[in-house]
Amino acid sequence: MSDLRPPEHQVAGHRAAPNKLGPLVDGAGLFYKPLQALDRGEQELAFYTAFSVHPAVPPRIRDKFFPRFHGTRLLPTVANPGESHPHIVLDDLLEGFPSPSVTDIKIGACTWPPRAPEPYVAKCLAKDRGSTSVLLGFRVSGIRVSDAGGAVWLPDRSELKGTDIPGVRRMLGRYVSSVGGDGMDCALAAAVYGGGGGVLAQLRELKAWFEVQTLFHFYSASVLLIYDANAVTAAGGGGGVRVKLVDFAHVVESEGVIDHNFLGGLCSLIKFIADIVAETSDMVSSGDS
Amino acid sequence: MSDLRPPEHQVAGHRAAPNKLGPLVDGAGLFYKPLQALDRGEQELAFYTAFSVHPAVPPRIRDKFFPRFHGTRLLPTVANPGESHPHIVLDDLLEGFPSPSVTDIKIGACTWPPRAPEPYVAKCLAKDRGSTSVLLGFRVSGIRVSDAGGAVWLPDRSELKGTDIPGVRRMLGRYVSSVGGDGMDCALAAAVYGGGGGVLAQLRELKAWFEVQTLFHFYSASVLLIYDANAVTAAGGGGGVRVKLVDFAHVVESEGVIDHNFLGGLCSLIKFIADIVAETSDMVSSGDS
Repeated sequence: MSDLRPPEHQVAGHRAAPNKLGPLVDGAGLFYKPLQALDRGEQELAFYTAFSVHPAVPPRIRDKFFPRFHGTRLLPTVANPGESHPHIVLDDLLEGFPSPSVTDIKIGACTWPPRAPEPYVAKCLAKDRGSTSVLLGFRVSGIRVSDAGGAVWLPDRSELKGTDIPGVRRMLGRYVSSVGGDGMDCALAAAVYGGGGGVLAQLRELKAWFEVQTLFHFYSASVLLIYDANAVTAAGGGGGVRVKLVDFAHVVESEGVIDHNFLGGLCSLIKFIADIVAETSDMVSSGDS
Repeated sequence: MSDLRPPEHQVAGHRAAPNKLGPLVDGAGLFYKPLQALDRGEQELAFYTAFSVHPAVPPRIRDKFFPRFHGTRLLPTVANPGESHPHIVLDDLLEGFPSPSVTDIKIGACTWPPRAPEPYVAKCLAKDRGSTSVLLGFRVSGIRVSDAGGAVWLPDRSELKGTDIPGVRRMLGRYVSSVGGDGMDCALAAAVYGGGGGVLAQLRELKAWFEVQTLFHFYSASVLLIYDANAVTAAGGGGGVRVKLVDFAHVVESEGVIDHNFLGGLCSLIKFIADIVAETSDMVSSGDS
């Protein structure tokens, strides 16, 4: 318990600070997410509880793409140690990566559950139209690049919010580049995005499940792309790369149909990243000739 | 010219009537669609003009899934034969089918182009939320069943408008059923939906193109499912089945990304129809045993 601290490498969402609740990690592989207000925490907990034992979820999909759920735990609040607040206990998805690079990508042109109350729908719709969500089927909510030399690039959130489609392309290029120089060498594109264990292969496996699953609709959930530059370089061919789904406060049960909104966005992300890999390999080829 | 008449089997869209413009057919394989008002006609014409010669469109996709474009033609208006109105000339998609059954399915959770003017967005969004579009990724805009005995089922539009997800499932079941009785024998499910040349195989080929094409976004376009009960029965295995895209007044050029909105809806339709085929074949199996 004494080792609990805010995660160093978080890229999106609420952060722990004095007088503010935020996620904590224990350094031994667990991540504590405070239950959110306005029923969101209860809804996220209900999702994890249902999902973690659902007989129709393939174990490989659950293990590979979702944080493992370890129940809940009351933790004293930072502001007032006499009080306590319930936390959802999950695997720490960055565990074992000394210098993780992380991109948080909110999937779906539409982030509002169809039966949500009107003011919430209006708020989400404005954000979806004001960001790349409607045009692109996803938006980048956070990004942090830590290269093999330990240099870090962490754009602030206002920079992300104003991003257009070419801006997203640049960010997903920078995500696999060294931090120095102009930050666009795409040196790790093939190793992180390509290959048998890379981002694209993992996203395509996830896509195959979304083409058939009629259990849940994952409104406003994110895909985290995670890698460690040194692990990727050491392992080669996509080792040291993780793809995980997070943020389930707005997941709803399906009415017997697939999550076409998430699937469409996921397909768009796959094509978008595949194009970056293709352009990078063209660059490398023409540089060699 | 003297043979021009309103098509007998149209299921959605504007119809020709005294004092009203509507599509015409010549009985020899051509379909004349009056240019719509409010720039829609010009936009649809611009799409056909660009699409019909676009070097990046695979000829097989263009020939198989789109009506062939034959330019435009001025035709005298019915109300006032002294006046004339421009029409887009296309292949008549029902040509050669004496008793066609047709379903018009508007694809996509979102039918408004992202950069459309605000009142139009609001109007479309209300329709998308008020129909199955947002939940299901598509809605049935029209349906007409003509069975092998010549009996016809043609629900009126108000019935279609109020349809929920189970209602769409019933309609897509009735679409491949005999018209008599309760209209739910799904007698033609395997022949129309299944098989090598059936609806599912054709939709999957279309899907493969939408996973990579970054040319156009097909907002508010429809997929027409067309078959002739006698042709299907005679040919077996999916002969006599056509899948065609129509209604391109709101198509916009892509900004280098796939049409995730159309693709998501298309994947939802594929899964939805595949489920109907699976249930029907279960019914048949348990009926046989």
